[in-house]
Amino acid sequence: MSDLDALISPRRVALVGASDTAGRLTARPQAFLAANGFKGEVVPVNPRRDTVQGLPAAKSVAEAGAVDHAYILLDADPALEALADCAAAGVRVVSMLADGFAEAGPDGAARQARATAIAREAGIRLIGPNSTGVVHMPSGFVCTANAAFAARDIESGGLSVLSQSGSMIGTLASRGAPRGIGFAALVSLGNEAATDVGTLGSVLLDDPATQSFALFLETLRDPAALERFARDAHARGKPVVAYVIGQSDEGRELAVSHTGAIAGAKGALSALLRDIGIVEVTMLDALLETPGALVQAALPPARPRTATVLTTTGGGGGMVLDRISAAGATIAGCGAKARAALEPRGVPLGSGKLIDVTMAGAKADVMQAVVAALLADPETGLLVVAPGSSAQTRPDLTVEPLVAALRAAPEGHAPMVAMPLPHAPDALRLLSASGIPAFATPESVAEAVAAILSRPAPAERDMTPLPDAVTALLDAAPDGVMDEVAAGAVFDALGIRGPAQVVLPVDGRARDIPLRFPVVAKLVSSALPHKTEAGAIRLNLPDTEAVASAVQEMLARVEVPVSGVLVQEMAHGLGEALIGLTRDPCTGPMVTLAAGGVLAEVLGDAALRPAPATAEAARAMTEEIRSFAPLRGYRGYPTGDLGALANAVAALSRLALHPRVQEAEINPALIGADGVLRLDALVRLGPSGDGEPHRPA
Amino acid sequence: MSDLDALISPRRVALVGASDTAGRLTARPQAFLAANGFKGEVVPVNPRRDTVQGLPAAKSVAEAGAVDHAYILLDADPALEALADCAAAGVRVVSMLADGFAEAGPDGAARQARATAIAREAGIRLIGPNSTGVVHMPSGFVCTANAAFAARDIESGGLSVLSQSGSMIGTLASRGAPRGIGFAALVSLGNEAATDVGTLGSVLLDDPATQSFALFLETLRDPAALERFARDAHARGKPVVAYVIGQSDEGRELAVSHTGAIAGAKGALSALLRDIGIVEVTMLDALLETPGALVQAALPPARPRTATVLTTTGGGGGMVLDRISAAGATIAGCGAKARAALEPRGVPLGSGKLIDVTMAGAKADVMQAVVAALLADPETGLLVVAPGSSAQTRPDLTVEPLVAALRAAPEGHAPMVAMPLPHAPDALRLLSASGIPAFATPESVAEAVAAILSRPAPAERDMTPLPDAVTALLDAAPDGVMDEVAAGAVFDALGIRGPAQVVLPVDGRARDIPLRFPVVAKLVSSALPHKTEAGAIRLNLPDTEAVASAVQEMLARVEVPVSGVLVQEMAHGLGEALIGLTRDPCTGPMVTLAAGGVLAEVLGDAALRPAPATAEAARAMTEEIRSFAPLRGYRGYPTGDLGALANAVAALSRLALHPRVQEAEINPALIGADGVLRLDALVRLGPSGDGEPHRPA
Repeated sequence: MSDLDALISPRRVALVGASDTAGRLTARPQAFLAANGFKGEVVPVNPRRDTVQGLPAAKSVAEAGAVDHAYILLDADPALEALADCAAAGVRVVSMLADGFAEAGPDGAARQARATAIAREAGIRLIGPNSTGVVHMPSGFVCTANAAFAARDIESGGLSVLSQSGSMIGTLASRGAPRGIGFAALVSLGNEAATDVGTLGSVLLDDPATQSFALFLETLRDPAALERFARDAHARGKPVVAYVIGQSDEGRELAVSHTGAIAGAKGALSALLRDIGIVEVTMLDALLETPGALVQAALPPARPRTATVLTTTGGGGGMVLDRISAAGATIAGCGAKARAALEPRGVPLGSGKLIDVTMAGAKADVMQAVVAALLADPETGLLVVAPGSSAQTRPDLTVEPLVAALRAAPEGHAPMVAMPLPHAPDALRLLSASGIPAFATPESVAEAVAAILSRPAPAERDMTPLPDAVTALLDAAPDGVMDEVAAGAVFDALGIRGPAQVVLPVDGRARDIPLRFPVVAKLVSSALPHKTEAGAIRLNLPDTEAVASAVQEMLARVEVPVSGVLVQEMAHGLGEALIGLTRDPCTGPMVTLAAGGVLAEVLGDAALRPAPATAEAARAMTEEIRSFAPLRGYRGYPTGDLGALANAVAALSRLALHPRVQEAEINPALIGADGVLRLDALVRLGPSGDGEPHRPA
Repeated sequence: MSDLDALISPRRVALVGASDTAGRLTARPQAFLAANGFKGEVVPVNPRRDTVQGLPAAKSVAEAGAVDHAYILLDADPALEALADCAAAGVRVVSMLADGFAEAGPDGAARQARATAIAREAGIRLIGPNSTGVVHMPSGFVCTANAAFAARDIESGGLSVLSQSGSMIGTLASRGAPRGIGFAALVSLGNEAATDVGTLGSVLLDDPATQSFALFLETLRDPAALERFARDAHARGKPVVAYVIGQSDEGRELAVSHTGAIAGAKGALSALLRDIGIVEVTMLDALLETPGALVQAALPPARPRTATVLTTTGGGGGMVLDRISAAGATIAGCGAKARAALEPRGVPLGSGKLIDVTMAGAKADVMQAVVAALLADPETGLLVVAPGSSAQTRPDLTVEPLVAALRAAPEGHAPMVAMPLPHAPDALRLLSASGIPAFATPESVAEAVAAILSRPAPAERDMTPLPDAVTALLDAAPDGVMDEVAAGAVFDALGIRGPAQVVLPVDGRARDIPLRFPVVAKLVSSALPHKTEAGAIRLNLPDTEAVASAVQEMLARVEVPVSGVLVQEMAHGLGEALIGLTRDPCTGPMVTLAAGGVLAEVLGDAALRPAPATAEAARAMTEEIRSFAPLRGYRGYPTGDLGALANAVAALSRLALHPRVQEAEINPALIGADGVLRLDALVRLGPSGDGEPHRPA
């Protein structure tokens, strides 16, 4: 039996610690399995009873015989013992309910380490601890302690939910049911002691019932696994959508304390998700509604990336159009072909971009003709239909013309979504059942439309090895911060040039300096990462003598070993940037580009990507920096070489491929009319093998 | 009979053009009035029938006898005739369904002008044209052609809706019903030919059923009327909430074409609403949910402006807390008094800011004790309760402890709102019925909580007359742009000083200049508003001779009358700002403060307020400008005198009190360590009486 089958449709499942008392938390999984017609065999394990809820009980895991999946419902310490029993019994998948692990201080962390070790050693696929369980609606495997699954209206369907919050699988199932959203798997990931969201997603990709994924995330423990999952999911046409707790600092702090995980930098998780083709939504409803919409209303490659809004009521349709446009979508009006088809029939299409068929739209045949013409028109990207009050009063008459037009639409037709304006639960269900993604609010349809038009896909990565010269320099350098001359050599080898320079010995003698004055003089020392604060840099020196006396003064001030004096030509650019590489504890290696200067810092004007980033991605980063507008030629300002800046960003980001590079930074990089120049450069190295593993190719 | 009674509960209403054919648009008002038990007399007017829907029909308005309210259902031209008939018959309130007025080109505009003239002359309170009607649920006056009112579940209650979109009164009624939101009046304002939203709001303020207002706005035609309404509504404790179409440029354009109105500047309407104490929401659900919440969960003055989140499920509660914090609310944890009351009972309160009573919260008595302790604790601002799955499975048991705790809460207790995490329509209805504002999504509760904590109130205005010296200068000046010397005198009289200066005659002779060099020389001419482009300004002149030759060069270049040469000392500041006064076609006089420089322009870093603004409001504007962070002492930068800048903003904004001032601007104002200095100054005057009327005191 595969891990997937053991996870979502085991032949035999053990419920370790199952209670016979109806309504108890630990009685729920067995009751839910019975109520949902689970076809496999259920074995309650309870040393104090012969039967549990009418089924014969085993005294122990060992007695239960061969099981594929065990859900351990015991408290933390006995749960650990049961996990060891499962290991001995060869159980394939174990989910664990108990809390008291990584989220619960040092004792809990020790317990979790033990759980991880047992699972790894035995090859167990461990879900949790702190997991409310695993559900797979198509197989009736509702193996959860989450009370929400007592509801009888949760339907089978194509959406699989992976949630780090145990309660949210119930919340999402409950909210999806009344609008006709059906579910495949719903898994509460808990503390992810051995199985993180990416790894579990990869397992579920093989589930034929699963057509799309909704992730509810509080943190991230294995970015490489998430990236592998996202790339595979994209390749298989199964969209992944995520909602992340942590839009606020308070929320991020809370999520961390709630999960016992480590916090990453603000914005890093969003940047990673976008980069690997996972759509992040900001509204709970959109988490439910967007995944299916990305399947059913995927934008064919030949279609323009625009939305056309069709309504039967001007004000409401205008509101939908406004929100969609505010979400960043480009709005198109009625295409020429559709107009030519409809105007002879006397259908009023309006003059602006909103297609408002108010009175005419009350007739089903007119509405069908309008929708058919728009779906067939090559100028239509995505069609958004916003029906008015008839969606509530006559849901069938509202939905039928849309369904009929969609069925008759030609190959390669435009996709369609719908957002009834009134409260219209019946219309939402009818639309969903007919394969037309349906939305309950103008805000969530706007978020989904923006996602559909973006055609989410994983970014490319440049995984070609670093140049040998770079690798050799890094391999040879000791741990810690490289001195500026050594770091400069690394950047030179990467093709990011610095100013013309010479390195003088520290003997205080005036020497001929073959540079264009004025120059800068800096003391070279790996113990001086912050030269300005240390008084180890002097600018604007007009001649050789000035250099000599500046060096004397600086040497008199610092008390660390100095290996030389770096003298560089002064340089000026049209603008300044900071380029940095860090290893984020949550998301792995990330490259940052920020505008230079205090204003950009105050305004947080920066772009962030997983590293390494391609030159194309780096180019997009330069376009995100609003403060670079003058460099793009705004109002006749001289244009800066942002192409060269993008190349420098991409080159620096590739240092992520060397596992010893902990951090690298150029601050500032001068942006000239032709090329960029690094001024200050920093590289920090860790012990060999200390760096994060690099990203999957 | 008062206008209010004629509007919402007339003794006799005429339906002009009522149809006898069930289902027809023009048959609906009569059918809805009958279905909703309207107690007044209904008189259908139809020249072709003796009876309509079972009631005797009048042949004409004249024949109908004395009616308080007429709803004209005819097409545009016959509707105008019927309006004239109503004027002759002395009808108090007339609503008109027809479109084809201001939104329909020059012919339509002429029709609308005629409708306005008839209504004004006869003293008719005209609603529309392009109005789907007037509804008042408590009196059963459902006098509308909007199909949504065929629904039988729309309840009476305290929320009145004023909408410029006719379909939205139906959409909002439909969406409010299932969650237990009851309505007082719902009015479709249409084109507002004679009665705008503010004027109608003021009429409805006297309706005892109306406790709060929801406005659906596409434009604004009378800012002073809206401000009067907002101030009166605040004084009477009736909150006003607005949703505005126009979050996007596309949406604003569409709203304008849809309503035949004029577009105001981006952001101006939002700035006006906030300033006059109207809460703007960005989500449709929040428009329904926030008004009642501002009544039932108003924050007492003694309570801190913080939110405390209580949940029975960690992940979901964390999501709610995250959203509320992201919406700008300050989060507080459990207060000391509540903690002292609860900890001896062994209630687990968690250590962070989220109060998570997961398992204990399943017991109603524990939940009631926790809520009671939090409501009584003086450290609780607003309590937000986010119950988990029990809200769906046991809505009564979830709601009862909240209601019981609220009933027993002491005088001055903290207010409470609730947001059930699952789909829980029954819980929402029970909560609403018990006076606990209830929300369906984490996003809308976050928007409402931010509104409650802001304690919305109209800003003060400084309506003391302008100094006589300022008025005298403005009265004496001709129409058009004042020359810089004259404009400078106005700003001097306002107390906004410029650099030390002299004005020389235009005779080309070198003269002794009693200023500190270097200086600036500018040609004085009202025909040169843009001196740099015209070559009429020279900077950094070192001495008298340089001034003389610069003047000669400039005079040789310009071809307009020049009245003198303005010579000013060069000045430098720590930062620059732009201060501007405009008369917005939508929102009336507005004052803008923006940071100087291209970067601030690119980033749109500006603050906007209705003018005149008080010094306090101007101070708040300086705090909104992110680019001023260095001037606020960021990272040891020298501090700029933002107090003096605020005074200058307030002083300039008071030019709005002079009806001839069309526009005024200082660009740049130099911000020094001690004071500000205006450099370029501009005032544009219109003919007397041409300016907008100033704001209500």
